[in-house]
Amino acid sequence: MDLKTQKMYEAFFALEDLREILRQTSPDHRFNDEQQKDFDGVLDRINSIIDEIRSNKGNYNLKYISKNIEIRDKEECFINIGPIQAGGRLTNEARKAVIAYGDGYSVCDQCLSPFRLDYLKKPPVGEFCEEVAGFLGMDVARVVRGARNGFQIVTNALLDKGDIALVSSAAHYSVCLAIESVGAIWKEIPLNESNVVTEIETAEKIEAVKEKEGVLPKLIAISHFDYLFANEHDVQGIAKVCKEYEIPFLYNGAYTVGIMPVNGKKIGADFVVGSGHKSMASPAPSGILATTDEFKDTVFSTTALQGDITKRKFGVKETYLLGCTVMGAPLIGMMASFPTVKERVKNWDEEVKKSNFFIDELLKIEGSKVVSEMPRKHTLTKVDTTDSFDKIAGTHKKKGYFFTSELKKKGIVGIFPGATREFKLNVYGLSWDKIRYLADSFKDIARKYELDVK
Amino acid sequence: MDLKTQKMYEAFFALEDLREILRQTSPDHRFNDEQQKDFDGVLDRINSIIDEIRSNKGNYNLKYISKNIEIRDKEECFINIGPIQAGGRLTNEARKAVIAYGDGYSVCDQCLSPFRLDYLKKPPVGEFCEEVAGFLGMDVARVVRGARNGFQIVTNALLDKGDIALVSSAAHYSVCLAIESVGAIWKEIPLNESNVVTEIETAEKIEAVKEKEGVLPKLIAISHFDYLFANEHDVQGIAKVCKEYEIPFLYNGAYTVGIMPVNGKKIGADFVVGSGHKSMASPAPSGILATTDEFKDTVFSTTALQGDITKRKFGVKETYLLGCTVMGAPLIGMMASFPTVKERVKNWDEEVKKSNFFIDELLKIEGSKVVSEMPRKHTLTKVDTTDSFDKIAGTHKKKGYFFTSELKKKGIVGIFPGATREFKLNVYGLSWDKIRYLADSFKDIARKYELDVK
Repeated sequence: MDLKTQKMYEAFFALEDLREILRQTSPDHRFNDEQQKDFDGVLDRINSIIDEIRSNKGNYNLKYISKNIEIRDKEECFINIGPIQAGGRLTNEARKAVIAYGDGYSVCDQCLSPFRLDYLKKPPVGEFCEEVAGFLGMDVARVVRGARNGFQIVTNALLDKGDIALVSSAAHYSVCLAIESVGAIWKEIPLNESNVVTEIETAEKIEAVKEKEGVLPKLIAISHFDYLFANEHDVQGIAKVCKEYEIPFLYNGAYTVGIMPVNGKKIGADFVVGSGHKSMASPAPSGILATTDEFKDTVFSTTALQGDITKRKFGVKETYLLGCTVMGAPLIGMMASFPTVKERVKNWDEEVKKSNFFIDELLKIEGSKVVSEMPRKHTLTKVDTTDSFDKIAGTHKKKGYFFTSELKKKGIVGIFPGATREFKLNVYGLSWDKIRYLADSFKDIARKYELDVK
Repeated sequence: MDLKTQKMYEAFFALEDLREILRQTSPDHRFNDEQQKDFDGVLDRINSIIDEIRSNKGNYNLKYISKNIEIRDKEECFINIGPIQAGGRLTNEARKAVIAYGDGYSVCDQCLSPFRLDYLKKPPVGEFCEEVAGFLGMDVARVVRGARNGFQIVTNALLDKGDIALVSSAAHYSVCLAIESVGAIWKEIPLNESNVVTEIETAEKIEAVKEKEGVLPKLIAISHFDYLFANEHDVQGIAKVCKEYEIPFLYNGAYTVGIMPVNGKKIGADFVVGSGHKSMASPAPSGILATTDEFKDTVFSTTALQGDITKRKFGVKETYLLGCTVMGAPLIGMMASFPTVKERVKNWDEEVKKSNFFIDELLKIEGSKVVSEMPRKHTLTKVDTTDSFDKIAGTHKKKGYFFTSELKKKGIVGIFPGATREFKLNVYGLSWDKIRYLADSFKDIARKYELDVK
């Protein structure tokens, strides 16, 4: 960790120590002698830290936050190309919001009747939900506990035990688990020869299920871009087929909502699921579930049961959401990032351009291949360096770790440790400068180990 | 907001601006002229802010974090006696951890095979889960997305459509929704004349269900202390009855786990559910679900299905948990708070003593009553001031709001706005000084409005 980052953390933590004194002396902050001494001590400490940052001189004292929890420097000291992390990196605003709203139920300060998260005016959660719905071209949206909780809400509402739901052969495990968790069964739609699901495979699979099981699938859930290759699947065509068979279609936008423009109704989706921590610059666990007027009363149905003794009812509480979902830091982070997120999706073409630039450079390294479809339509890519970097790994004493180690020396992290055959990387959000540096670094490492670079 | 708190936030936010520059210039932080200027500017700004804090002089410039999201001062500038917030207030360590691990998947940096949250060594999530299990006297524990997600995992695993589960007549809506969400039905065990559920009412209700429905309930879920009165229910006796009927017993520790000692096996619980944001000093949404060796394979069962085309299986992923649960800030906050939480439960008697002291003082105000059982065994209490403060509200031009307004002037927040009849408050974690100040404040307000104070 470089000194600036180290000292930045020291300053943050000193400020939290100061905050602790303020909390202990609330409401009036009349300090006794000891508290005054502590308070002044913290202020002195912050001044010294700022001096150290300015002069770039000082000691490295800080490693742990609390027992065994290390401070993290992946975003400050490295270029992080981890496949799942890029779109969930917090905005500056989200980081500020999380500082202010970390405490348990802090967003609930002004919860008034009818006591439901999406009715909150301060902070403006209700308005946020409405904006999210509009942003996705849907009628209504809710914040959920991650995309997988979004899937779960839909499967809970739509599927019974033994029902069949279709997913892609490249579906993420979480959508499969959401189906399995209600006792339903997931079956796969095959990828075509381009590793893509289209309306053709979808219609064939529906027919096959109908033929074999005598029933239609009750739900079809497909990722726009899958987690495996980040290939683009024909969601619009699939939605059309779903409409024809009258099967509800869930658009899985874990890798799209928040980084590229998504219009659920244009696509023909009945449900749009997004991930806050994957693509909306939010802390985990957070996500959104949006739907249409047609389905809102099904997935966001309110509780129907009543106490047999007390005759209590729980009014507007939404059953499958279990009432309020994300009451804290992830919600406020998501809300604070949202203005930036709405803007950044407009830059998607540029992000894809950067992705293709990097991949083209990588392909100049002899033997390197791309497993994902080409040209890239996404910033996440699966590459295959079996015939380039893995050849080095074969004889290197560090084996595959030589590669992650070389990258780390250049300040690059996020590739699976030791991987030199197939691995994924994501360049979302990197500036052109960083993209060029990244490409140069890969080529430098190749040259160092005498691989041919075009 | 007082100046110190205001300036504290300004310093935090300036540090985030500095961090943003570090992020944009990673990995080497070689600044161009403009970046250097910005960086120096932030350092200057922090120095000025520290000067302002020191001299307690300066302007109030900061109100919003991001569009419409206000900075929050409930813990720094007030004594917060909100009924649900006290146990979820972050520790200093948790606040530091959240700063370091706010980014989406930040805890996943070192996720290695078999790729499951509770296998993580860095940060030590696995160790944490084991410690939580031990702390609760149970065999195995997992982090979940709030207590309600803990209920949901159990109801998903144990209940089928139409099954009956028993809850208390004072049960929180979230446990009822968790039951309803799987198509099961909740029925209520009545409170006795002391507003408490004991083994007697439980056994009678089981028999009544058996008699009327011809089946036994499949689950009994009872709060140790309920949310309505924070009365203590006879969980040990109830557990005994459950054992006799071989009905699984879920101990709802939303108001106990993390603030008082809880030993699930001694109680006889099959499941212990705790809430991170309610009682474990963690950001929302977070919670824990602990169980025994007998039930672990049922509730934490791993996925059994397989892709019909790809033959994929998802190995160790736990179906009802949907794989990994809380990947971010709430998890790291919970972990960072845990050493403090383990210690603080030992002070529960003192917390209850403070609670009783405050309540006794409140009762000195003519006409004031307590709805909860007495003496208090908890820090959360429902009081009834219909014959004291509500009499003032009847003629005051602000109506009930006079009371919250008077309290606010004294730096006390958390009581439901406008409430002067029955309302709840929670004094958990307040120092004796604050407790005395709180009691004096209530009495001062009473005297101001000419209520008799003994």
